Amino acid sequence: MNETGEATREHLDRLFAPRRLAMIGATNNLNKWGGMILLNVLVNGFQGRVFPVNPGSREILGVKAFSRVADIPEEVDLACIVTPAPTVQGILGECAAKGIRTVLVISSNFSETGAEGKRAEKELVQEARRTGIRLIGPNSMGVFSSSVSLVCMMALLEPLKGDISFVSQSGNIGVHMLGWGKRLKAGFRHFVSSGNEADFTSQDYIRYFGGDPECRSVMVYLESVKGESSFLEAARRVARHKPVVVFKGGKTPAGQRAAASHSGALAGRGGVYDALFRQAGLIQVRTTEAFIDCGRSLANLPLPRGNRVGVITRGGGWGVITTDACEEQGLEVPALAPGTLEALDRLLPPYWSRGNPVDLVAVPDIEIYLDCAVHLLRDPNVDGVIALGALPARASGFLRNSCAGPIAPVWGEQEIEEADAKAQRSGERVLEGIISLMKDLGKPVVFVGGRELSPQFEEILAREGLDFYPSPERAVRVMARLMEYGLYRRRGEV
Amino acid sequence: MNETGEATREHLDRLFAPRRLAMIGATNNLNKWGGMILLNVLVNGFQGRVFPVNPGSREILGVKAFSRVADIPEEVDLACIVTPAPTVQGILGECAAKGIRTVLVISSNFSETGAEGKRAEKELVQEARRTGIRLIGPNSMGVFSSSVSLVCMMALLEPLKGDISFVSQSGNIGVHMLGWGKRLKAGFRHFVSSGNEADFTSQDYIRYFGGDPECRSVMVYLESVKGESSFLEAARRVARHKPVVVFKGGKTPAGQRAAASHSGALAGRGGVYDALFRQAGLIQVRTTEAFIDCGRSLANLPLPRGNRVGVITRGGGWGVITTDACEEQGLEVPALAPGTLEALDRLLPPYWSRGNPVDLVAVPDIEIYLDCAVHLLRDPNVDGVIALGALPARASGFLRNSCAGPIAPVWGEQEIEEADAKAQRSGERVLEGIISLMKDLGKPVVFVGGRELSPQFEEILAREGLDFYPSPERAVRVMARLMEYGLYRRRGEV
Repeated sequence: MNETGEATREHLDRLFAPRRLAMIGATNNLNKWGGMILLNVLVNGFQGRVFPVNPGSREILGVKAFSRVADIPEEVDLACIVTPAPTVQGILGECAAKGIRTVLVISSNFSETGAEGKRAEKELVQEARRTGIRLIGPNSMGVFSSSVSLVCMMALLEPLKGDISFVSQSGNIGVHMLGWGKRLKAGFRHFVSSGNEADFTSQDYIRYFGGDPECRSVMVYLESVKGESSFLEAARRVARHKPVVVFKGGKTPAGQRAAASHSGALAGRGGVYDALFRQAGLIQVRTTEAFIDCGRSLANLPLPRGNRVGVITRGGGWGVITTDACEEQGLEVPALAPGTLEALDRLLPPYWSRGNPVDLVAVPDIEIYLDCAVHLLRDPNVDGVIALGALPARASGFLRNSCAGPIAPVWGEQEIEEADAKAQRSGERVLEGIISLMKDLGKPVVFVGGRELSPQFEEILAREGLDFYPSPERAVRVMARLMEYGLYRRRGEV
Repeated sequence: MNETGEATREHLDRLFAPRRLAMIGATNNLNKWGGMILLNVLVNGFQGRVFPVNPGSREILGVKAFSRVADIPEEVDLACIVTPAPTVQGILGECAAKGIRTVLVISSNFSETGAEGKRAEKELVQEARRTGIRLIGPNSMGVFSSSVSLVCMMALLEPLKGDISFVSQSGNIGVHMLGWGKRLKAGFRHFVSSGNEADFTSQDYIRYFGGDPECRSVMVYLESVKGESSFLEAARRVARHKPVVVFKGGKTPAGQRAAASHSGALAGRGGVYDALFRQAGLIQVRTTEAFIDCGRSLANLPLPRGNRVGVITRGGGWGVITTDACEEQGLEVPALAPGTLEALDRLLPPYWSRGNPVDLVAVPDIEIYLDCAVHLLRDPNVDGVIALGALPARASGFLRNSCAGPIAPVWGEQEIEEADAKAQRSGERVLEGIISLMKDLGKPVVFVGGRELSPQFEEILAREGLDFYPSPERAVRVMARLMEYGLYRRRGEV
């Protein structure tokens, strides 16, 4: 099967865009998962209808509840089961009788806990096959979908909406990445905690994300692959037209042992995956920071045509360590074209570094940054730019503190405000100028700088799905993966 | 010379604890360095006296100014020169005549800009030698010293005071590390931007920091070493009793070229330094994050006796990737002692992972974390612990949002406040319990968790000079350097 099969697509449509959701095991007790998850669904403003199911309650968290699935008066797209493991198989039967075909099993205590759990999980799948049901999980932490504002998850969370789709074999890593995304302004379109993957596997979700035009990058946290060739085939097909960023847990023998006791599956053959992933065009990352950074940046930046990086900085030392980091990641920091040097000579004092990195040290004019960045981006030797310190720091807080003190004789409140406003305007021009040229030329720019940006800067960046990276090393890692993926995509075009 | 020579120590005492400072080139123009630096000194509440010197002004930023150095009516410990390069040599003569022996030269345009600058710098040093003056810089960005609240620097900054002493061959990297330190609660005792090191070199400052009992760790940003054997000898002596964390810029050929054009010196022989640093017991870091993380953590954590790490987590996937990261950094994640397993069996549900990492997944009781961490720390197979998710997330914001909505029927404002207060108290007990045991046993604990902590948690951490690392990879890197340094120190003891 090359594409997501029609049947699978329908099931996953019901998972990610249900109109009617049965929450089986819902409760008013917020210390239980059945209370927490329903609360999450309600607070996040799910755009469909939710039907709590619990034999003991007529109303749960203010919503009319039903004793049994059969009592729900409407058709149901998706059932979410939170009840203890031994009850799940029986409930599947009730779901089938009600015509429910797609079931998310949060309940744990299946194959992840040993031989007995494995047996129970096998029986669960057999029951699903028998009744025509497809399963997400068991042992899933839940699902998020931006299109219907569904947060059917065990952790209280209000994810930022965006264009990243994410499947994770660890619910907890998924939850934290959604949390990081909120802080780092990286928005998600889908998230699914795939749990034990007794039925639907990572590759099913990856195929589905691949076929969704509004998903712009795919993130995958993997501990073990169920069906290596089908996984690689699915991932390869998606990677041909959209970035698939993979973080593999259990890369080392000790990590594999930990994974075996965690997800109840063999963790696979360590380093062997590196080569397989590379061949399939997957972008493999090795740290949690790189995972979210690449998930977001690869969705939003143009793909570079080569691996040659131009570096622009206000501080010589930062240029040095950025260059080191580029070289360590296999990127080239090339000599600039003669025309670029001449143009920069006209802009910068005679003692400037006359090379790449372009070091603007001690040139106080903010807008000269834009002029220099434009020449660097246009340089035919440069495929992408790492821009450090593009925006002015806001001095006003510091200056205001001193307003009544030593600064008063020379600068008053008004002068400070004017200076601040001028810096703000210049900064906006620099940022918008660079972003606009980046799009025109199709060359990526990765920014490095402090996280305390003004609301206006934040707004410009959010509009473009961009962010400032807090360190040059993080920016270089993103650029390296971007250039690696650009190379893969170009190869495919030949 | 084995220790800081008495004469050098006196000069650097005058640099880091001057009572009277002459600011030569001070101005009311805050767009000029001579304005900015004086403002910085004044706003940060320098505990000595400052004498602005400028032929054209009687008062600068509200402070009485003098036309010439000779006019200052008191003895001066330290002169800071901000005037254009060609004037500096003459001013040295004036300083000497006034009896000033220690001079910080901010002025640039010396050896970093080429042959002519090199000549000027050589003449400057000759003039200093002739007049008995010792120089910091030229091309320095300035100095910070917590003991007298001196921020004599080009960048507006209010550094956090603490016990790290830092010398940097890049002023800009220094300034940003001080800024990061403020955000990450890593406080500094000294900072000096060593500039072109025409006279005082990195090793002079390192020796001085080594002899200061209130400095608990030394950070060094290096691009080129002036006098390899004297540098290594100085660093080795300090590293025997206090951590010296080194970040080398210009490790790669491209980075070396960038460094050559930046600091005006040959950047040294790349990888050769790795071995030299290791032999000298220096802790080499390779990213800016690891630089500040290690600078702070090595000042405050007990030194482990081996490289065996216990991992405790609330999420299986986080345990897996932390274990991977440990193994990739050469750390062992050992099997636990039988006694530890038995003790944990009594605390955790029967399906717990029964190994290292200790995975508490889905055990909602916060305080069980402390009980488990205690057993893990006491395990004779474990030399240090990485503790993930030790503190409860604050749910109250989320819950309050929903207070008027779905949650109202079951939980009111009062219930939410009680739940929050209970989680807060439990969290404090967990944190204080772990920290206290860490000190008793002399085994380090590195915490991983979100940065949005409650003020009470922040306070506990700040008191101990500790912090939560935002990712497991950052925590593991700190643990790896800590274990490497522990090994070095133990070797010295044999």
